[in-house]
Amino acid sequence: MAVIVQKYGGTSVGSIELIQRVADKVAAVRARGDRIAVVVSAMGDHTDRLVDLAAGIAREPNPREMDVLLSTGEQVSISLLAMALCERGVPARSFTGSQVRVRTTSVHRRARITAVETERLRKALADGEVPVVAGFQGVDDVGDITTIGRGGSDTSAVALAVALKADECQILTDVDGVYTTDPRLVPDARLLPRLSFEEMLELAGQGSRVLHLRSVEFAAKYNVPLRVLSSFRPGPGTLICKEEPNVEAPLISGIAFNRDEAQITIAGLPDSPDCVARILKPISASNIEVDMIVAATSRDGLKDLSFTVHRDDFLEAQRLVRNITTEFNGSRLSADDKVAKVAIVGVGMRSHAGVATQLFESLARQGVKALLISTSEIKIAVLIPESALESCVKCLHEDLGLARAL
Amino acid sequence: MAVIVQKYGGTSVGSIELIQRVADKVAAVRARGDRIAVVVSAMGDHTDRLVDLAAGIAREPNPREMDVLLSTGEQVSISLLAMALCERGVPARSFTGSQVRVRTTSVHRRARITAVETERLRKALADGEVPVVAGFQGVDDVGDITTIGRGGSDTSAVALAVALKADECQILTDVDGVYTTDPRLVPDARLLPRLSFEEMLELAGQGSRVLHLRSVEFAAKYNVPLRVLSSFRPGPGTLICKEEPNVEAPLISGIAFNRDEAQITIAGLPDSPDCVARILKPISASNIEVDMIVAATSRDGLKDLSFTVHRDDFLEAQRLVRNITTEFNGSRLSADDKVAKVAIVGVGMRSHAGVATQLFESLARQGVKALLISTSEIKIAVLIPESALESCVKCLHEDLGLARAL
Repeated sequence: MAVIVQKYGGTSVGSIELIQRVADKVAAVRARGDRIAVVVSAMGDHTDRLVDLAAGIAREPNPREMDVLLSTGEQVSISLLAMALCERGVPARSFTGSQVRVRTTSVHRRARITAVETERLRKALADGEVPVVAGFQGVDDVGDITTIGRGGSDTSAVALAVALKADECQILTDVDGVYTTDPRLVPDARLLPRLSFEEMLELAGQGSRVLHLRSVEFAAKYNVPLRVLSSFRPGPGTLICKEEPNVEAPLISGIAFNRDEAQITIAGLPDSPDCVARILKPISASNIEVDMIVAATSRDGLKDLSFTVHRDDFLEAQRLVRNITTEFNGSRLSADDKVAKVAIVGVGMRSHAGVATQLFESLARQGVKALLISTSEIKIAVLIPESALESCVKCLHEDLGLARAL
Repeated sequence: MAVIVQKYGGTSVGSIELIQRVADKVAAVRARGDRIAVVVSAMGDHTDRLVDLAAGIAREPNPREMDVLLSTGEQVSISLLAMALCERGVPARSFTGSQVRVRTTSVHRRARITAVETERLRKALADGEVPVVAGFQGVDDVGDITTIGRGGSDTSAVALAVALKADECQILTDVDGVYTTDPRLVPDARLLPRLSFEEMLELAGQGSRVLHLRSVEFAAKYNVPLRVLSSFRPGPGTLICKEEPNVEAPLISGIAFNRDEAQITIAGLPDSPDCVARILKPISASNIEVDMIVAATSRDGLKDLSFTVHRDDFLEAQRLVRNITTEFNGSRLSADDKVAKVAIVGVGMRSHAGVATQLFESLARQGVKALLISTSEIKIAVLIPESALESCVKCLHEDLGLARAL
C-alpha cells in the first residue's frame, strides 16, 4: 500500500465540474488501495479576483492582511473537494495550512516552510480518510496566516510528501508532463518519461514553467520522487527522481527558454580587481537578482562587463549602473531588453564534451550570435536576440536529435 | 476611555466603497479616544454565493466542510477592513474565529459559543490596534472551524463585548434603531430611544428582525448594553439595557408581527389527561418548534387543541398529527396557514391591567377575530387571519397611542 500525495493546480479545480472530476480521480486512487492526501490551489482565477478586491481598498495592501485574504481562495477549494469526496462515500477532511500546522517564517506573501506537523494528517489517513490540504498557505509562530508565494502549492505538496514520507508526490496539471521543449512552440517535442532532479532544476531555473523551482529543490533535498502528469488526460507523465548511475542517460534531455531577461553591458572599464564588485554591489543591495555574468579583458587592457537581470528590474538596474559608472572615466553603458535565453540541459553532458560544439555549430548555421554564454556541469545557456528565439529553439530541437519520430 | 465593540452586518460591508465608509467610521471612534474592536459579517450576498457553490457539489454538503467554506466569507471582510484601516494610518489587525479562539460546541452550522479567549485581542487593544474580528464563526475543541448560524454575527459581537468587558456593544445595520413597529408598514412609527432587555427579547421573539434573539439573550444574561444604530445615517439609535426601576416606563413599547406561523387544530378529542402530550410528542421528537398552544374543553366534555408551528414545518406537522389523531375516534383535524401573529410588548403592562382590554376593543372595532391568544407578563400575542394583518397593525399602533406627532 503506497502513500501518495497529489496536488491539483488552479486550472484543475477551476469549476464545480472540474472539482467533481478531481473527486473521481482521487476516489479511484483510494479504490486501488493506496493512501492518498490531496493538496489543492485556489479555483482558476479566484486569487486574481481577491487581488483586485485588495487593490480597490489600498494602494499598498498590508501584507499580513493580504495573506488572510488570499488564503481564503484555497480554503474554498479544500472544502468543496472534501464535500465532493464525502458525497461519493469517500471519507474526507479538509485542512487549512493553520489546521495542519504548515509552519513557516513570518515573511508575509513569501514565507518559507520550516516544518509540517503530521499528527492530524496521519490520524486522518489511519482513519481511512482523505486529507484535503490547502496549498500555498501556512501559519507562523504567533498563529498568523502566511502564504508562500505564487506557485507555492507545488512546494506545499512536496513538503507534505516529505513530512508524510510519501512514496510519490504527483503534480497534476494542464500538461502531460515535461517535454524536450515547449510543445506549443515545437509540435514534435517529446514527452520525457524520466528526468533527474538536477535536470529538472536546471530546466525550471532556465525557464520551463512546468514546476515551481522551489518545489524541485525541496523534492531533491529530501529525495521524494515527483511525477508531473495531466489532470485531464490519462498517461504516466514524467517521473523526476534521483539519477540512477546504471542507466545510460540521454545526452540532452531538453531545451528551456525564456524572454524574462535583459542585458546590461559596461565597456571600457579599468582592469582593477574590485571593479566588477563595485558595479554589482548596489544591484544586489536592491535585491535585484543577476543571472548570467561575463567579464573579459581586451587587448587594450580595458575590461568589458555584461550581465542579465529580470526585465522587471531592467530600468532600476540601469539607473544603479549609470550612477556607479560615472566613477569610471571613459566607460560606456549599453543595455538591451530585446534578448532571450536558450538553455540545453542533460546529465549526459557530463561525460560528453561534444555538446557545446553541436550547439554552436547549429547557432552558426542559423546565423544566430550568442551574446552571452553560461554553463554548468549539465547545462549550457546562451543569450540571443529575441527575434531569433522561436526559430532557434526549433532548429536546436531538430539538430540535437530531440524530436520524436512522427 | 470607553471600550466599544461595533458590529457591521453584510449590507454595511457589501462593497469596496462601503468598507471604506466603515473604516472612516471606525477611525472616527478611535480618534475620539475610545478603544474599539470591530466584528464584521461577510460582504452582502457572499454567503449566498458560497451556499450556491456547495449546492453544485453535493445534495447534502458535509456540515463540517460547509463551515470551512462559509467561514471564508467573513475572512475576506476582516482582511479588507483591516487593510482599509491600515491605509488610513490606523493600526489594525484581523482575527478569524480560530485566531481569537472563539470557542464553540462542535455542532456544525449551528454551534454555540462557549468561551471567547481575550489574550490576543487585549494585546492588540493595549498596543493601540483595532482588532477586526470575523463574526459568525468559531473553533471547536479539536480545532475544527464552526459557524453559529445565520445572523450569528450579532451574537459574536455580544460575546466579544462580554469577554472584553466592553462598555457598549453597537450593532450597526441598515435601520436607525428599534421602532414602535415596522416603519415600512406604519410610516408614523416612532424610534424608541431606550428599551429593556426583556422587551427586546419579546419583540425579537415575536417577529421583529432588527436583532438576533440569541444576541439579546446573551447581552441580557451578562448585562452588556446593546445599541442598534444605522451604519448609513447619524443618530443615537436605540439603547437596549437593564430596566431602570425608577423610570416611568411607557405602557407599551412596540408592536411586533410575523407571517411565519401556521395553525393546526384538532377538535373533538377525549378529555383524557395524556391526550395533548400524545399529540405533541411526535412533533417535538421531529425537532419542530411549537409556539402558541391553546386547549379548551367544551360543554359536551370533548377537548379542542390548537397550536402553531413555523410555516416551513407546516406540512410535516400535519402529517405527524394526522397519524396520531387516527387513535382518537371522532376527532377532526383542521389546518390553516393563512394566519399571522401580532404581539404588543411593554414592561409597563405589568402594573396596568387595562392593556388587554384596549387590545381586544380595538380588534372588535376592526371586526378582527383573535384565533389564538398567548400572554406573558410583558406581552400579549394574538393570532389573526393574515388578510387582516396590515390594517390591524396600523389600527393598533394608532389606538394604543404609539404614533409620533407628525
